[in-house]
Parts: sequence; C-alpha cells; structure tokens
Amino acid sequence: MKPTAILLLHCLDKQGIITEITKFITDNKGNIVYLDQYVDNQDGMFFMRLEWELDNFLIPRDKISDYIDTLYAKRYEMTFNLYFNDVVPRMAIFVSKMSHCLYDLLARYKAGEWRVEIPCIISNHEDLRYIADQFNIPYYVWSIKKDHSNKEEVEQAEMELLRKERINFLVLARYMQIVSDNMIEQFPNHIINIHHSFLPAFVGAKPYHQAWERGVKIIGATSHYVTAELDAGPIIEQDVVRITHKDTPESLVLKGRDLEKIVLSRAVTKHIERKILTYHNKTIIFS
Amino acid sequence: MKPTAILLLHCLDKQGIITEITKFITDNKGNIVYLDQYVDNQDGMFFMRLEWELDNFLIPRDKISDYIDTLYAKRYEMTFNLYFNDVVPRMAIFVSKMSHCLYDLLARYKAGEWRVEIPCIISNHEDLRYIADQFNIPYYVWSIKKDHSNKEEVEQAEMELLRKERINFLVLARYMQIVSDNMIEQFPNHIINIHHSFLPAFVGAKPYHQAWERGVKIIGATSHYVTAELDAGPIIEQDVVRITHKDTPESLVLKGRDLEKIVLSRAVTKHIERKILTYHNKTIIFS
Amino acid sequence: MKPTAILLLHCLDKQGIITEITKFITDNKGNIVYLDQYVDNQDGMFFMRLEWELDNFLIPRDKISDYIDTLYAKRYEMTFNLYFNDVVPRMAIFVSKMSHCLYDLLARYKAGEWRVEIPCIISNHEDLRYIADQFNIPYYVWSIKKDHSNKEEVEQAEMELLRKERINFLVLARYMQIVSDNMIEQFPNHIINIHHSFLPAFVGAKPYHQAWERGVKIIGATSHYVTAELDAGPIIEQDVVRITHKDTPESLVLKGRDLEKIVLSRAVTKHIERKILTYHNKTIIFS
Amino acid sequence: MKPTAILLLHCLDKQGIITEITKFITDNKGNIVYLDQYVDNQDGMFFMRLEWELDNFLIPRDKISDYIDTLYAKRYEMTFNLYFNDVVPRMAIFVSKMSHCLYDLLARYKAGEWRVEIPCIISNHEDLRYIADQFNIPYYVWSIKKDHSNKEEVEQAEMELLRKERINFLVLARYMQIVSDNMIEQFPNHIINIHHSFLPAFVGAKPYHQAWERGVKIIGATSHYVTAELDAGPIIEQDVVRITHKDTPESLVLKGRDLEKIVLSRAVTKHIERKILTYHNKTIIFS
Repeated sequence: MKPTAILLLHCLDKQGIITEITKFITDNKGNIVYLDQYVDNQDGMFFMRLEWELDNFLIPRDKISDYIDTLYAKRYEMTFNLYFNDVVPRMAIFVSKMSHCLYDLLARYKAGEWRVEIPCIISNHEDLRYIADQFNIPYYVWSIKKDHSNKEEVEQAEMELLRKERINFLVLARYMQIVSDNMIEQFPNHIINIHHSFLPAFVGAKPYHQAWERGVKIIGATSHYVTAELDAGPIIEQDVVRITHKDTPESLVLKGRDLEKIVLSRAVTKHIERKILTYHNKTIIFS
Repeated sequence: MKPTAILLLHCLDKQGIITEITKFITDNKGNIVYLDQYVDNQDGMFFMRLEWELDNFLIPRDKISDYIDTLYAKRYEMTFNLYFNDVVPRMAIFVSKMSHCLYDLLARYKAGEWRVEIPCIISNHEDLRYIADQFNIPYYVWSIKKDHSNKEEVEQAEMELLRKERINFLVLARYMQIVSDNMIEQFPNHIINIHHSFLPAFVGAKPYHQAWERGVKIIGATSHYVTAELDAGPIIEQDVVRITHKDTPESLVLKGRDLEKIVLSRAVTKHIERKILTYHNKTIIFS
Repeated sequence: MKPTAILLLHCLDKQGIITEITKFITDNKGNIVYLDQYVDNQDGMFFMRLEWELDNFLIPRDKISDYIDTLYAKRYEMTFNLYFNDVVPRMAIFVSKMSHCLYDLLARYKAGEWRVEIPCIISNHEDLRYIADQFNIPYYVWSIKKDHSNKEEVEQAEMELLRKERINFLVLARYMQIVSDNMIEQFPNHIINIHHSFLPAFVGAKPYHQAWERGVKIIGATSHYVTAELDAGPIIEQDVVRITHKDTPESLVLKGRDLEKIVLSRAVTKHIERKILTYHNKTIIFS
Repeated sequence: MKPTAILLLHCLDKQGIITEITKFITDNKGNIVYLDQYVDNQDGMFFMRLEWELDNFLIPRDKISDYIDTLYAKRYEMTFNLYFNDVVPRMAIFVSKMSHCLYDLLARYKAGEWRVEIPCIISNHEDLRYIADQFNIPYYVWSIKKDHSNKEEVEQAEMELLRKERINFLVLARYMQIVSDNMIEQFPNHIINIHHSFLPAFVGAKPYHQAWERGVKIIGATSHYVTAELDAGPIIEQDVVRITHKDTPESLVLKGRDLEKIVLSRAVTKHIERKILTYHNKTIIFS
C-alpha cells in the first residue's frame, strides 16, 4: 500500500474549484487515485474527497495542510480536513451488557478488516470483561450510580484515559448511558452510536417494544454521530429487516441484533476510511 | 376454480379450538384447502383463516354462518367473518392529482390480476379524468372548497354513490383529503390508504421533504387501514428503498412513487384475498 | 432547465486527465454541474461523466465534439460520447402479450417522468393494441411465422420504421422474440431488455419455473443491454424479492411482474439520463 | 419453558388429516402451542409442524413415537420426526482459514441465543485454533494431503469423533473441503453449508470473482444442506446485498462476509428450532 493523503473539504460552490484543486495536486506531481465530489444545489455547497499518492509529491507531508490553507481554504472560505492513510486511527469501544456488537467489532479487528487500533474498552458494568480478556484488550469499568451523582466524575476519568490512549473516535456498541455534552464537544462527529430502530421512528428507550406496539412490518437500525439531542445526530447508515405479526418483542430483539451489528460496523468502516463528511446534521458518505 | 368458503375468526385461545373447527368442516364433508392460525401469547388470543371447498359440503352456503355462530361463536365468544371466493368484492378508488398509483391499480385490474370490480373512481379534482376515460370507468368529481364548508355535503354524496354501487371497500390512491370519521365508521378497516413514508416516521404532510431534512439513508412507504387518528391505523404493508446524500426532495418523490405503487397494490391484493385480520390496531396477514 | 452538454468518456488512466478536462471546460467558461469519475484499477482504465452549462460556454455547441476529439481524444486514445440535455431521445417499445411493463413505461411517459419521445410500439401480436390506443401511440404488428421463415423480412421492415422514426434506442418490454445480430449491430448497447430472473441464474425460457424447481428463497429480475449471446449482455440493474416454499410457479410469475416493471424502468431512466457507460460487457452506472 | 413435543410430518394430502392429528393431541390432553401446515398442490403432499405441551399429556414421552407410528404413520404412509424441546442438539463446526462465520456462531452460542451444544470444532488447518481456545472448545486438526490420499482416513477419524461426541448435525463455516458421500449419508440433511453466492448462480470456486467478472449488481450468499452434488442441495436461506461497478473482487469478498455470517446463522437457527422439513431437494421452512 502506497502512502496517500486524503483531503475532505467543503465550501460554497464556485466555478473552477475542482480544476484548481486537482491542478494543484497534479502540478506538484501527486497522482490522484480517488476523486468524488458532490454539490448540494439547495445550499449551493460543494463537497469533495480527494486522495493522492505521496511518493513523488513535491510538497513535504507536514507542509501540505499549510499550503492548502493558504492557497485555497482562506480564499474560498473552505473547511477542510487532511489525513494520511498510514496514520492508523485509535478507537475506544463503550459497552454495557450486550455482547453482539462488541464481538462483531472485535472479530473484524482481529481478522484485520480495519486499519485501526483498539487500545481500550470502557464500560459501566463488569459483564463483558470476559470478552475483552478473550481478545487481550484492557477493559475499564466505571459504575455510574443510579442517581447519576458520580457521572461527571466518571466522565472525567474516562476522558483522562481517552487522552492518555490518544483515542481519535469512540464507538458506542449498545452503550446504555447518555453521553454528556462535555464529552460530545471533545469528540464532535467522532462518537458513533448504534440505535436499535429506524430513526426517526422510535427514539429513546425500548424501540423494539415500541415497534411491536405500533405493528410495523419492517424494523431497522441506525448508526449516527452523537450530538447533544438524543438520537438526533447525523445518520451514517441504516438498514432494515422484514417482520410479521408472528414476531414478539423478544424475537424483534433477536432479529434486531443482526441489523445492529452490520449497521454499526458499516458506519465504523466508513469512518475509518475517512469517507464521511458531516454538514448541517447530515452526512455525505463518499463511495 | 372451485367455490370455497373462507372463515376468518379470532377469540381467546383455548385448548381444542382447531380440532373442533376442523372437525366440523371435515364431518360435514368440506375439504380444507387452506388453514393458517396464529396465537398471540401476550394477549392469549387465537386467530385463524380457514378455507374449504363447498362442492360436497353438507351445509347450504346460506346457513353456514348461522351454524358457526350457534355452534362456536357464541360458545367461544368468537368474532368471525365468512366470505365466499366466488363473490367478487367491489372497490372504489379515490384520487387527487397524482397518476402513478391509479395507473398501477387499473393496469392490474385490466390484466385480470385481481378478482375485483371497480365500478367508480372518485376525485376532488378533474385532473385524472383522462385515465378513467382510458379505462372506461365512471369518474366522479366533487370539489371540496378551501374552507371545507362543503365537505360534509360532498361526503354525503360520495356515500350515496358508494351505497348505490354496492362498494365493499375503498382505496385511497394518493387521495389528498382527510376522510371524515363518519365515512370511516361506514367502512371500518375497509379503507386502504398509502402513506408516502415509513410510518410511524414522518406522519402528515410532505414526508419526503421531512425525510430529506432529517438525512435518512432509507425511505419507505406504508399502506394501512384508515382510522380516526391520522396515519395511525393498522399497518398492512411497508417497503423501503435506499437513498444517498445525492438525493434531493424531488428525486425522493420520484423514487418514492415506485414504492407507493407496489406497497399499495400488495395491500389491495391481501385485502381482496381475505387474508387480513385486524386486531387492536394491528394486522394479522395470513400468507 | 438550462442547456447542458454531457460528456461520457473512457481511456487508459493517466496522471492529470481530470485536471486537463475540467480546466478545458472552466477556461472556456463552462460551469461544471456534474462530475463523476471512476478508475478500474485492474485494467488501469479511467471513466468519467461530466456535465456543464452551455450558457456562457465559449465554444459553439456544434464544435465541441471536434475540439474534444482534437485536443484530448486523439492524444489519450479516448473513447467519448457527447450529448445535449435538450435533445430528447426517441425510444421504441417492443412487446408481445404481457401488459405490465408496457403500462408501467407508458404511465411514466404520460406523467412526464422522462425526457423522452415514444413514437411507436412494435409487436409480434395484436394483443396489446388496446393499450397503444389508450395512449394514442401508433402500434405496428409484424407476425413472425412459427418456422421463422419471415423473420429477416420482418426485421427489415422494423428497421425501416426505426429509421423513419429516428429511433435512438429500443426497450424490449417482455418481448418474446430473439433479436437478430443484425439489429443488435444497428443499436449496440442501445437495446434494453428485461429478463425475469436474477442473471446469470436461470438463463433462457421459463425462469420462474426453473427457480421454483430449484427451490430458491429469493427471485430476481435483470435489465441488460442485448448482445449476440442470449441473456449475457452488460447488466444495468437487478432487484430481488423474497419468496417462500408456499409460492407456486404462478405466484412467482405474479411477484416477478412487480420486479420486472421496476427494474426495467430504472434501467430506462439511467439510459435516458446518459448515466450508463459500457465497457467489456459491464456497465458503469453513474449516480 | 415448559417441555414440549415437536412433530414434523409429511404424507399425501387427504381430507381430515389435520382434524385427526389435532384431535389425537387434544383428546390426550396435550395443549397445542404451534401448528403450521402446508399443502403442495402440485404433488398433492401435506406437510405439518405441530408442537404441544407435555405437562398433562396422557401418553408418556417414550411411547409417543410408537402411537403416532401405529395410529397414523402406517395408515397414511406418513414420514415423521418427533423431537422434544428439552433435548439439546449437539453441533460440530468445520472450518478452514476464515474466521468470520466461526466468530459469529460462537458469539451467538456464548450469548445463549441457541439451545445447542458445541462440543468440538474440526479443521484441516491450525489457523483458527486461537478462536477455539478463546471460547474453550476443543479444536481438532486433520490435515488433508494435496493429493487427497489420506482423505478417507481423515474422514474416518472425524466420524469417530462425531460418534463419540454424539453430534447431531454439522455446520460447515466456510470449510474449504468437499465432504465425502460417506459422511453425507451419515448425516442426511444434517450438514449445513454456506456458499458465498446467490445459488444457483456461481457454483463452485471463487464465486465473488465470477460475480465481478459477470458484472452483476447484487451479490448473495446461500445456506443449504449438503448433498452428493456440489452446491446443489436443498436451499435453507439466501440473502443479497447491492454492489456497484466500483466494487472490486476484494471488496465483494468483504461485503460477502457479512452476508455469509447472517445467512448461515439464520439457517442454523431454523435447524435448531426444528423448523425445517426437506422434501424433493427443497425445504419447507416453518415460520
């Protein structure tokens, strides 16, 4: 795998942007291996993901960001992020008591499906320590009291750990606690949650029971970035499965597990590949 | 096609019901060609659909209902409906301005997909009269004033027509008017609507715009029986299609049309086949 | 809707192509409203779809093709096609006896879903003339003898009509005749067929019966461009529906109809929008 | 969970069968908790799954089979199997080098999703021993020589182990060896395989590469019982996922993994629940 730079940007759409940016890469001997762009005609916004090989690129990798900032970002009032494909992101998993998503994430990790490091698993319960042990990953437990009186303290400790482990993004793998605004601000659009319904239907607790009550014929799962409003952040991925009147709340829970695993893992894959751009509480998912 | 009787029933579950009913049919020389049953263990309710050939059945067809009522319904506090497969139901279609569902319904009708009669199409606009003309079906228009001042009067005229035409059930094929409680009471669980969202998400007006605003990755359509509460009746069928950030509200409308057609037609098929039982605002859909 | 030019091209991938082409458009004051590109890394091939507004474009529309040819196509050994969004393509529909696809195509046409003209419907049977009459479209019938002795003669007459009507592409809407190599050569990658199976499973006749025999749990439909080898041309679109052991060959035929309509119409949409590029018996479908 | 008996049967369809069987259960004070039946009208065959509580059942559980045999099976030339829900089946897993299906099966096992025992994992490679160790399940390796000269000997040893461990059914979780006819005869319709294509498309080796070559727009996975003919046994479950021209053989392999896991696990679930009846190389899957 050759080293590449990945540029994600958005700005007001203007004639000639693609030409300018691609010319900048080409003139500096970068070989473009990926280009995808999208124009939101309602808002007149331009979005692009660009990836090029660094082998013969004339600008040293630690200067690229400066150049883009000076040459384009300021001029076009552009928001951009620059990544390098050989810098492996570090991910923390948060869990409570259900094992299916955790197993799915760790099985992929172990099989080498993702370029990612998972240095720690964090929980509010001891229940899943045996899985962390199976995979030799440190497992940290901070119990949260029923009255939530120690919640702030716990999150301080968690954030301390995340800093120490240089964590880039969090995955809530059926983590049954609401994340505080403070932590969300530390990781804006970098906390991936899986909600066990087809959002925006059935926000909040016990969505499978809600779905059963309503008598729907299809259930779903939704992965999204966590924002301050519950289950209302930018949606990354959704999928559904057909059910019938014969299903019970219990069988929905079982069927839903398979959805949750898949939908969460697809979102994590896209995030690791730097293929998600967020804008106005929505995601642009590059293919 | 041999003449058959179709029995749909539900009651509290009790040991021996299936045996008793099937024995009654068999003892009277009815050949059972369809049996499907379902027990809702939460409510302890028993549901069954039974179909048998009438050729050698010892009880005359106009007495069957009485027999069932006397022998079983009273004893088991059973609710039941009896149909005959050679009695063709009569369906009225209500439309406004969009043609896709109407064309789909009439193309199936014309191709002989359904055992149904469609003696009339009713609208609040002239727009789709040409389609009714294409298919030689009478088209009735009653305009509803913006202030709804003539709504009751219009519905009276419509119900008069429905009576005259001996209509059994109504299909709202993107009919953009709210049906009054009075008409709903005349046709309980016999008015099929298509809502252009994956209910219960995006109730009410402009669901595709709502979906686009929320940034969902999948859109849906829902057919349901109309009840007094808007878009909240028993769901008959749903289906979905995947979308991306590239979709606009307009492209969602286009993609949604295909869903609406299919989902509405599947519901109508099930209704005509007498395969739907409603209970507590849910449907049991026999296969 | 502003007039635009649409360029579809492919060539061996080479550094700087995107930059050069987009610079050419931009330098000549064309506003790019769509760019999608794709590199097939196995073959080292580059594919692009580009659309730009012609309003202020400095090169007159009848010279654009020459310019591209001289400046880029020869240099890069590029294959390209140039279209204008205000030139409405003309489509002929071929049918036999089944009405569902024809109704679906004409209902969309009538509703204005597509920028297309349909000047004629061609058949080997009289059966569907009433539909052509409903929509006021000329319907031509050439019967083909059982021994196929007049097949060449019939196709000559058909091609004469297609020329006269300046037809750009053909849609076989469940047309139950094999198209000759001669006609295929006249319309390379411009004859769209719908095959009622999930290709490459169940090539040839009676695919639903084949599917039922095999006991599959899902059936499909496939739209593809017609090539000399039966059911083996470039696939444009596929979709599937779940079935059960309760389905009969007859119920598969009914369920399949809905698939066929949707899958064929999606392919026609993509073709009309100039979003399909064919290469090595595959399609690139731009989004 | 109350103890129940589960009866799976099929025979030529005849008036009164359902009544007789259900009467037999009811007369002997068995409470029927599940009844599903199906008539194949083409072959005139009757299929039924019946489950009843044993608590007050008058016939002792070790005599039930005799009674059914004497009273009904002989009379109706019926084929039947009787199971008890409190007898936990024992399953052996066969693997080669790929971990995703194995992890998925074991995660469900560990989470208590299935009433099953997994006393051993068998492989032709050492590669996945670490997973067996993680879950504390004995892992047996028998290498098969390239010339297959020791294949018979290896299968003898494997069958010896399966006997010793009283294994009821085998799951081939991406096991890359062809199972011999001898072993298939020992476990007729009791060896579940996962094939990584939408059968009958792409039988045999490297189906994802075949799919990519053909340019399909959807890929699938199929679980089936193993029979003497390769990839041609009764299909239990299938599912699909949409792909695009951007997918490579490698990305298909990755996308396919998720399908394989789900489709295999659904088949195993149905098998464990005794909800599969096989007949003429097809499955009846009770819901």
